[in-house]
Amino acid sequence: MTAVAPFRSVAIAGLGLIGGSLALAIRQRWPAIVVTGVDNDAVIAHVRGSGAIDRAVGHVGELGPVDLLVLCAPVSQNIDMLRHLPPTTGTVTDVGSTKREIAKVGAALGAPAVFVGGHPLGGSERGGFAYASPTLFDGRHWIFTPQEGTAVGVVDALSTFVSGLGARPVTMSPDAHDLTMAYISHLPQLTASALMDVVGTAVGADSLGLAGRGLVDTTRLAASPANVWIDVCQTNEAAIGAALDALIERLTALRRDLGRSERLESLFEAAAARRAALMHGRE
Amino acid sequence: MTAVAPFRSVAIAGLGLIGGSLALAIRQRWPAIVVTGVDNDAVIAHVRGSGAIDRAVGHVGELGPVDLLVLCAPVSQNIDMLRHLPPTTGTVTDVGSTKREIAKVGAALGAPAVFVGGHPLGGSERGGFAYASPTLFDGRHWIFTPQEGTAVGVVDALSTFVSGLGARPVTMSPDAHDLTMAYISHLPQLTASALMDVVGTAVGADSLGLAGRGLVDTTRLAASPANVWIDVCQTNEAAIGAALDALIERLTALRRDLGRSERLESLFEAAAARRAALMHGRE
Repeated sequence: MTAVAPFRSVAIAGLGLIGGSLALAIRQRWPAIVVTGVDNDAVIAHVRGSGAIDRAVGHVGELGPVDLLVLCAPVSQNIDMLRHLPPTTGTVTDVGSTKREIAKVGAALGAPAVFVGGHPLGGSERGGFAYASPTLFDGRHWIFTPQEGTAVGVVDALSTFVSGLGARPVTMSPDAHDLTMAYISHLPQLTASALMDVVGTAVGADSLGLAGRGLVDTTRLAASPANVWIDVCQTNEAAIGAALDALIERLTALRRDLGRSERLESLFEAAAARRAALMHGRE
Repeated sequence: MTAVAPFRSVAIAGLGLIGGSLALAIRQRWPAIVVTGVDNDAVIAHVRGSGAIDRAVGHVGELGPVDLLVLCAPVSQNIDMLRHLPPTTGTVTDVGSTKREIAKVGAALGAPAVFVGGHPLGGSERGGFAYASPTLFDGRHWIFTPQEGTAVGVVDALSTFVSGLGARPVTMSPDAHDLTMAYISHLPQLTASALMDVVGTAVGADSLGLAGRGLVDTTRLAASPANVWIDVCQTNEAAIGAALDALIERLTALRRDLGRSERLESLFEAAAARRAALMHGRE
């Protein structure tokens, strides 16, 4: 951790799991930073009790000057806030799961505001400040998506900031981010939800009681909050559509090959090899 | 645990994860039972070192009289062994993941052999005696699938036996078993393998390194041994095919609805409710 924080004041709009964890992590790792929370009265009252924020306002329009504003609401709300920022805003980032749509809006911001999209990876299916933790970002990747013309110093400051919070900063373009996430994050989410819906529709509660850890792990993501994922689907529709097509095609081939042991063997072995690649360095 | 074991001698054919755990559990919970292992020389040498078996033979055809024979190889090998049992065999069960095909073969056995299919739930993606544990069955359901004409006393003895090993015996018909398992076990396995294959094909190793716990959990089953699952697919093809059709249909509808927030909301909320039902009583 560096001794001097790259921002003296940070505003966090949306104090759910990620925004709340961000506030708690700043308190712990960069205690000199003045933190302003932006959320409704009920959430603010809850968060104030934790001591994680110094100030609070109800809307981003009421914010005074801050060095950094982090948008931590679902993607569509972040985009809406970005469209209505007060003119004094400095560096602005967000933590949403898609980056292409918000980057388009961010690119149109006028000086002195500078937008660089961000995405801390590895959330949780549990939302809300009640699950927030100052260690949420420890060892997790935090992607930033600068665009042509983004000043290097802005990305450096954001990287220093999140490194101080325990995260590992990475940069890529908004397009590359959304394509990659369509496969490694959005497709697993949609698959888990579809699988849980199909299984729950086909069998009764008694039979669900017989299910082992396989079904439990495979459908864990199905508990994720709907509003977050509706936004993801709508702001990354093309890439997610292509990923869904690939999965539907694979499942259709598998359905045709159920009686053909060599085809099945080749699928299971390819999948096991991919799984080993995924787990490389994790266990 | 009852004081008197329902079987005095038990042979276990196939000393992998389940057969090996069964031998270890018998040693711990029913120490008076004489246990014979049936497997190749290399496996037998390994298992003998653990003290889990009293005797060993290379094939079921070499077995002398035993009160209970448990077939613990993949389904197709269990069916093959069942077809070639020595005439002196008493009660026979298996631990395979499908029950309809083996029940047909079992129904044709001549006295004194009596076959009742069995399925201890909650295996692991890790195979082999190296992962065997005497507590593998603790609290897990163990399904038995008696058919018309199966003597109640045989099912009672098997239920007493597995209760002593820590499991919770349940009975259902072979057909009901295979239909239920197609959804709660086989479909999640195939989905995890197909998803892992699609994601690993689409993105490189660097991007897999960015994946969070969502993809990791959703694809855990993709590490399962291929031979076990090839047998499952081939002996439960009709039910698995119907389950795959239902999932493909759900994913196709979802793909069409990516831009329609009410449809997405209703899917995510239905899935979250099913997930809550699945987790009821588990957490």
